[in-house]
Amino acid sequence: MTAQPLTSKDNPLLKSIRLVSSGARRAPKQLVIAEGLRVLEEVQRSAFEVEAVVCSEPFGSLPREAALLHRFDERHTRLYRVSEALYQSISTVETPQGVLGLVNVPETHFASIPAESQNPLILCACGLQDPGNLGTLIRTAAAANASLLCTTSGTVSARNPKSIRSSAGAFFRIPIIEHIDIPELRSYCSIHAIRLYRTDVQEGVSYTEAELRSPCAILLGNEGSGLTAQSTSDLPAIRIPIAGGVESLNVATAGAILLFEAKRQRELP
Amino acid sequence: MTAQPLTSKDNPLLKSIRLVSSGARRAPKQLVIAEGLRVLEEVQRSAFEVEAVVCSEPFGSLPREAALLHRFDERHTRLYRVSEALYQSISTVETPQGVLGLVNVPETHFASIPAESQNPLILCACGLQDPGNLGTLIRTAAAANASLLCTTSGTVSARNPKSIRSSAGAFFRIPIIEHIDIPELRSYCSIHAIRLYRTDVQEGVSYTEAELRSPCAILLGNEGSGLTAQSTSDLPAIRIPIAGGVESLNVATAGAILLFEAKRQRELP
Repeated sequence: MTAQPLTSKDNPLLKSIRLVSSGARRAPKQLVIAEGLRVLEEVQRSAFEVEAVVCSEPFGSLPREAALLHRFDERHTRLYRVSEALYQSISTVETPQGVLGLVNVPETHFASIPAESQNPLILCACGLQDPGNLGTLIRTAAAANASLLCTTSGTVSARNPKSIRSSAGAFFRIPIIEHIDIPELRSYCSIHAIRLYRTDVQEGVSYTEAELRSPCAILLGNEGSGLTAQSTSDLPAIRIPIAGGVESLNVATAGAILLFEAKRQRELP
Repeated sequence: MTAQPLTSKDNPLLKSIRLVSSGARRAPKQLVIAEGLRVLEEVQRSAFEVEAVVCSEPFGSLPREAALLHRFDERHTRLYRVSEALYQSISTVETPQGVLGLVNVPETHFASIPAESQNPLILCACGLQDPGNLGTLIRTAAAANASLLCTTSGTVSARNPKSIRSSAGAFFRIPIIEHIDIPELRSYCSIHAIRLYRTDVQEGVSYTEAELRSPCAILLGNEGSGLTAQSTSDLPAIRIPIAGGVESLNVATAGAILLFEAKRQRELP
């Protein structure tokens, strides 16, 4: 394993990593930080270009860690090793596992996603503020065989290191189109004969009775106030009935229930 | 509204609140901290005894906030008002809404839960480490009409202020028995003719084909390693099939999918 040592905190790579982590406007848009063993395993399996992988001194002693570094080495990824103190200066977590990568993930647009050969299932997260919730939704969408995840403008970035971490690396597995406008999604769904639903806490048909077996897209509202966009009120609504008195579900929970109901319906004989 | 001003950071009530927040061994076991508008609304609706409610200077200006304080006042709850700086010294969150309560929640045991008159649905969280995940599960269990939530020893406390907050107050709505032993649950299920399942990521029947319509209890494993207890390997297993390559679901997500499948089956004609 041919990891190069880095010892200066002013090393240009480490400075870039800190810049990308900060989410500053002048940070290169295409780069994201992937941190943690499981997330890096997903990166390694993906086709994305890895700019560099940095690990702390003790990382690599466990077999699963060593295997990861070995596979990056085979891919000729640039590998660097730093002291634990220096690693802490670039880490995006409080108790780091000691490995992170700088990955080149070009933005995806409706024009650039592959033709929908199978039965599309799209989730669109509208206005979510919490990167943990968005990351969990990304992980769940990948697990439910969703074909695409979108976010509207005003939603936390899926490229936020915490979103990527909460996705357990599924960020690198499912196509994600960020910061779309609803009319853009409506147009896409219309062209591809994809039924578009909005979710509502009060009105609409129960999600178990909604037709989710055929191509569909679901708009999911934010944590506090649900869907508020005026441009969706004419869409058919689906809701998740819950026990009397309970105000609402966590947004990532609601998304999971809807996605796995679609998966269930699609697997019926 | 008759809130009493408190100005000393050494006031005994504020010291008790900090002690309970800290989770120290010498903190009174029965007391929990409920923080935030929505959580306090649930406390107010519950039958639990409220030791005191403390709010910061600006809290109460919005109608929903004023209504909450008014209802506590009608209940003759002791209400106190403190400066924003003093509130910050007792808050359990970074950006507080400015209201918290100290609530007396006696421990629940199998012997003390009401006779199961309806169709029991029990979730048992085994070894969860993240209070946010446990709180989300509590919220989801209440929304799915579950009759009881249990946790095994080695699980983060449901009384942790962050669990209570993530439950959006559902902590005060559903019976919770903490830190049980699996044999104790097995015995309870056996006496009450409740079918007990373990969850597994690989083996077992798909959750949509499992019989969840009749009385049942589900053991849910922890975030990292699933269920490891030797004492469960003979139980029937259910699993949530997920898309090829995705390693697993978030534990709160998995619980939600199982609970809402049980709810779906129970509502079938």
